[in-house]
Amino acid sequence: MSEGLRTLGIDVGGTAIKLAVVWSDGRLARAAEIPTEVESGPEAALVRILECSRTLLRAEAMPSQSMRAIGLASAGIIDTTRNLVLDAPNLRSWERFPLADRLGEAFGVPASIENDVNAMAYGEWRCGAGRGTHSLLCLTLGTGVGGGIVLDGRVYRGAHGGAGEVGHITVERDGPACACGSTGCLERYVGARWIVERAVQRLESDARPSALRGLDAAQLTPLRVSEAAADGDPIACAVLEETGVWLGVGLASLANVLDPERIVIGGGVARAGEALFEPARRTLRARAMSVQAAALDVVPAALGNDAAVVGAALLALERVQGR
Amino acid sequence: MSEGLRTLGIDVGGTAIKLAVVWSDGRLARAAEIPTEVESGPEAALVRILECSRTLLRAEAMPSQSMRAIGLASAGIIDTTRNLVLDAPNLRSWERFPLADRLGEAFGVPASIENDVNAMAYGEWRCGAGRGTHSLLCLTLGTGVGGGIVLDGRVYRGAHGGAGEVGHITVERDGPACACGSTGCLERYVGARWIVERAVQRLESDARPSALRGLDAAQLTPLRVSEAAADGDPIACAVLEETGVWLGVGLASLANVLDPERIVIGGGVARAGEALFEPARRTLRARAMSVQAAALDVVPAALGNDAAVVGAALLALERVQGR
Repeated sequence: MSEGLRTLGIDVGGTAIKLAVVWSDGRLARAAEIPTEVESGPEAALVRILECSRTLLRAEAMPSQSMRAIGLASAGIIDTTRNLVLDAPNLRSWERFPLADRLGEAFGVPASIENDVNAMAYGEWRCGAGRGTHSLLCLTLGTGVGGGIVLDGRVYRGAHGGAGEVGHITVERDGPACACGSTGCLERYVGARWIVERAVQRLESDARPSALRGLDAAQLTPLRVSEAAADGDPIACAVLEETGVWLGVGLASLANVLDPERIVIGGGVARAGEALFEPARRTLRARAMSVQAAALDVVPAALGNDAAVVGAALLALERVQGR
Repeated sequence: MSEGLRTLGIDVGGTAIKLAVVWSDGRLARAAEIPTEVESGPEAALVRILECSRTLLRAEAMPSQSMRAIGLASAGIIDTTRNLVLDAPNLRSWERFPLADRLGEAFGVPASIENDVNAMAYGEWRCGAGRGTHSLLCLTLGTGVGGGIVLDGRVYRGAHGGAGEVGHITVERDGPACACGSTGCLERYVGARWIVERAVQRLESDARPSALRGLDAAQLTPLRVSEAAADGDPIACAVLEETGVWLGVGLASLANVLDPERIVIGGGVARAGEALFEPARRTLRARAMSVQAAALDVVPAALGNDAAVVGAALLALERVQGR
């Protein structure tokens, strides 16, 4: 019976807003996507989100009173008590706009907002690659490197909503400057643009033939590197090997501190697959302490781009059900 | 009324075993200490622990039936479900000896065992420098560097009892080899012997006068360095400054991952005080993200050597009371 409950999940990103009607077991009933248009501001976005939501509900033949909750996910630091985005570099003009409350009022249902990586982690924990675990660390590898932590079935947010910023652990004290203001952060070695930089440098220093040679800056992406590596391209393989080792250095620190049951890794960069995962696991096992490393799985995320929208919806439903 | 409950706390270390009758508010009613004598084995130690415990209870005019629980603390990886020490480098021959269960049987009360740094963290959280917080990270700086994490009033142990091994996060990927098998671990920069090594090196490279000059290896300890720094000794101050910066690099990583409300630092090395804490805080603020760092206190531990025995006793009492 409770399996039949439906919730609206909304994942607000810097370029696109994903909307989905989500069953209480995490399956998507129906989904849609609209451009964020950050510069037009949150009021305008609210109008478009409402319109798109109503279209989704109509298409689902779903009266709005049968919707139990609305769950939003957003990048940035979230105040989950006041339902506000406090600090979001990609959505500056949206900060402190009560998007969740306004949506909730419009539909007459409770609405809540969660950090997108936390929502992703929860989605993966409930019905993705983290299912069945008690403690899960979820990483997302892309332009930035984010993390979400689920402990005993609850999102761990930290004292100020800032827990899980795993991209900004130090792996090399006096390493290159990171956008966060520190130096030698994990993100500075495995973030998308630094993988590209590594490829550029290796193409210069390594004379072996490579499908990556001659690509211009727009074409040389982590995806292109992954594709080349899948074809056995030696330069691409070396770039992912080096990236994976750096990732493993970070994972070892995280394993020693959090001792999670499983680490799930998603995001665009993670599509490189084993060429990245194998050196990461190898390095993790070599550097982490034995108790933490021995039984620790490092696996790819299972829900892809839907993880945050699913997680946000399920978190909102949990909240309504008072869990 | 419940304030009047008394519990026996026992902190088993590599050289000494501390025993104390602890009130339920964390005050010590009475304490004693006996040598561990590791080589004589756990059976012999059990006999001496029982004898010392009975002496304590008699001195307290405390019938054993008024004792509610026994809480042990031990270094190493603890299986809190089976009440066993699984892996303890300083107590190898004691591993898997059912010390807690045997003590519990002898007194006819429930007995439980906890990792000593976790017990310390819990003690500081309940009635020391972590009081009033929801999330606490507690570090102990000595020969090794350990950590304990308290989240929402509960010790966070991780999936395999290994959480909080903060001494073994990487601060410099290709740094010097650490005893754990990795390289560039935090402990390798702030552990007691590495502070001494730093002092030796600086005495060689820095010609300024110093009270540390001419001390032999046995005399040159972190305590001696701290004392000299307190007198304004320039070499000693430089050594602690450098140590504090390394500590701060580690704290910044930990703040970004855990976002604790407070960090409490104890252990012998922490007695250096502000000469160590000031550079650590400064580095933390410079390297951690602003949300995590802005409101984060870094304070000295308050319970000193009693933290683990108090924490173990209170944890055992919590368990009996079903919390």
